[in-house]
Amino acid sequence: MEKEEAKAPDVSLKELSNRLEEFARERDWEQYHSPRNLLLAMVGEVGELAEIFMWRGEVAKSLPNWEESEKEHLGEELSDVLLYLIRLSDICGIDLGDAATKKIVKNAIKYPAKAT
Amino acid sequence: MEKEEAKAPDVSLKELSNRLEEFARERDWEQYHSPRNLLLAMVGEVGELAEIFMWRGEVAKSLPNWEESEKEHLGEELSDVLLYLIRLSDICGIDLGDAATKKIVKNAIKYPAKAT
Amino acid sequence: MEKEEAKAPDVSLKELSNRLEEFARERDWEQYHSPRNLLLAMVGEVGELAEIFMWRGEVAKSLPNWEESEKEHLGEELSDVLLYLIRLSDICGIDLGDAATKKIVKNAIKYPAKAT
Amino acid sequence: MEKEEAKAPDVSLKELSNRLEEFARERDWEQYHSPRNLLLAMVGEVGELAEIFMWRGEVAKSLPNWEESEKEHLGEELSDVLLYLIRLSDICGIDLGDAATKKIVKNAIKYPAKAT
Repeated sequence: MEKEEAKAPDVSLKELSNRLEEFARERDWEQYHSPRNLLLAMVGEVGELAEIFMWRGEVAKSLPNWEESEKEHLGEELSDVLLYLIRLSDICGIDLGDAATKKIVKNAIKYPAKAT
Repeated sequence: MEKEEAKAPDVSLKELSNRLEEFARERDWEQYHSPRNLLLAMVGEVGELAEIFMWRGEVAKSLPNWEESEKEHLGEELSDVLLYLIRLSDICGIDLGDAATKKIVKNAIKYPAKAT
Repeated sequence: MEKEEAKAPDVSLKELSNRLEEFARERDWEQYHSPRNLLLAMVGEVGELAEIFMWRGEVAKSLPNWEESEKEHLGEELSDVLLYLIRLSDICGIDLGDAATKKIVKNAIKYPAKAT
Repeated sequence: MEKEEAKAPDVSLKELSNRLEEFARERDWEQYHSPRNLLLAMVGEVGELAEIFMWRGEVAKSLPNWEESEKEHLGEELSDVLLYLIRLSDICGIDLGDAATKKIVKNAIKYPAKAT
């Protein structure tokens, strides 16, 4: 994050989706990936994410006083939520990237930007 | 989804992140986007997602008997979770795409694929 | 809360459980009350509870600046979580009051009180 | 659970509330018990509850094929959600038992029972 000489590549939702599908197939886990199983797995990860923030009181943007290891742990929990969310979308036959793009457009109409 | 003559473009996490940042700035909403506010907003959206699945019993992959309008609603709720998750990551200074890529690698080491 | 001339009676978990069972039976809703359906319904209510707190920043104890109508809304969302939690416990055959009493004892052993 | 020669006593919400208040005071934990801290702690416990159900597919009422140790674990996670919910209500100044009783009455008006 700080120096970023080697900037992280710009990952797409479809790339992550493809890797997750391959991951499940190689481990024969597709049998467990029903919509409600994945949804509950995601709720479990949301719980782990909440636990990171639970006893801290208000937390400032960019987490100024967090240890590097705490930030890494946070990145992992955010990722777990994302990965189950992508997998859930795929199993339901929803194109998440497309849906999210449309949702931003819809939100922009619902909440017009202030005139300047 | 069905015919997809015009295939949906492959959206990256950074593109969505940039659009969300612009969206917040144009509406002067950055003041509300603290980590715990965004986390609770995401939990709210997870709740709405759960409500779609709550009285259905087990749901089959690809949602064979769902109305088109129900699938569209589902796509919107999945998107809402995603958008708050991306925004939460950004506000915390976490590169979500990078973290998710690393998490998949870590998972692959933790759960080795079956030999074939 | 404030004056409480007529103090609210001391409701037990079993009383609430009995009323919820009767409620479901009278409406022929028992067919929908499977463990995972009830769990997802509870997650939905947790989401509604989170929405009450999401854009507020840190909230002080006793909610000093909340409108009476906001407190009432909060009481309803807290209740919705409780009612699904009790119903879920019942449907799983778990005596929630007994389990909670034992959990407090277990926690007291795990986290001993400070000597005085 | 099964034999219950010594039937579990009928615990009230106020008894649990009093014990939790004492528990926090004896450990000097009241300083951490702000509304949003407790809410996030509860979301964490909801996540642990979801994890118990996540890979099981549909689960039958009364959990016929569960090990006794699994049921005990479930009882603990249900309790953890309950205890944080009660504590959150108290810290917000909401009488949860009273609110839940009123909510059942309100629900009964909203969803009238079938005529017989």
